[in-house]
Amino acid sequence: MSRKRFDEMNCSIARSLEQVGDWWTLLIVREAFFGTTAFSEFQEALGIAKNILTQRLDHLVANGIFERRQVRPGVERHEYFLTDKGRDLMPVLVALVQWGDRWLFGEGNEPLRVIDAEQRVQIAPLKVCDAAGREVAPSQLRFRPGPGATERTLRVFEERRSKRRAASIQ
Amino acid sequence: MSRKRFDEMNCSIARSLEQVGDWWTLLIVREAFFGTTAFSEFQEALGIAKNILTQRLDHLVANGIFERRQVRPGVERHEYFLTDKGRDLMPVLVALVQWGDRWLFGEGNEPLRVIDAEQRVQIAPLKVCDAAGREVAPSQLRFRPGPGATERTLRVFEERRSKRRAASIQ
Repeated sequence: MSRKRFDEMNCSIARSLEQVGDWWTLLIVREAFFGTTAFSEFQEALGIAKNILTQRLDHLVANGIFERRQVRPGVERHEYFLTDKGRDLMPVLVALVQWGDRWLFGEGNEPLRVIDAEQRVQIAPLKVCDAAGREVAPSQLRFRPGPGATERTLRVFEERRSKRRAASIQ
Repeated sequence: MSRKRFDEMNCSIARSLEQVGDWWTLLIVREAFFGTTAFSEFQEALGIAKNILTQRLDHLVANGIFERRQVRPGVERHEYFLTDKGRDLMPVLVALVQWGDRWLFGEGNEPLRVIDAEQRVQIAPLKVCDAAGREVAPSQLRFRPGPGATERTLRVFEERRSKRRAASIQ
């Protein structure tokens, strides 16, 4: 499937993955959260080829996730900083850290901890809550068409509902 | 970089991305949350080539994210269901939905809503909290070596700390 199809998908997951959905992209964002700003530091930390790093950083700058700043006036060298949009990816990274810690490394073997810099305490597992702050179990979560749903999205959801109804009658 | 390097990375983000870090993989998981179980339905919904879907589903089954069940004894056809490990990816998807809604579609244009099936209410934005339930601002979050940190991880963090110290003295 070409990139174009993802552009057309009326879904925030698909569109988000288009901007941050490959390994390198999210690992570059991770490095930036670690405090890395220089091209050579990203390269060294990730062991990534220069041309691939250039391409990914350009893509991230074009999408407004990083901004490129000159180190000093008159100096050719640039550094890369997360924008607000980029920093807002933190919950995605935290969700990935916690899933990996739980299912791939296991308790007591977590390679990294995510801590509150001020209180020096570890953060809690992410919980999905309703507006009143009540936790919602993952099994209770459902996707439904939103205000930006296209005709196609509405049709797909209607078809799924009919199928489920038919299945429950059988 | 080969897959091997990701295996070696002492980081839950890198290891998680190895299992779920391409577009198709997370979109297949998304479809499963929508209620899709049959190969042909995944294929139709995603417009994905059969060979790619087969490969990704095999990978997801091998990693314990989906399980493959025979539709009925004596019937060749199989269906695919999320395991506990797979369902536990919900916060990752929710984090991606909310980021995309905020930065790519914007308020009032959300293609989908994530709701609590019982209360029929929309869920709130994910918040990172400490153990006492206090919200931690993303700017306050830091990564630190955990109990499973390898020598290499510890060294990298020590180097970063020295660099920051040197930079703050200058």
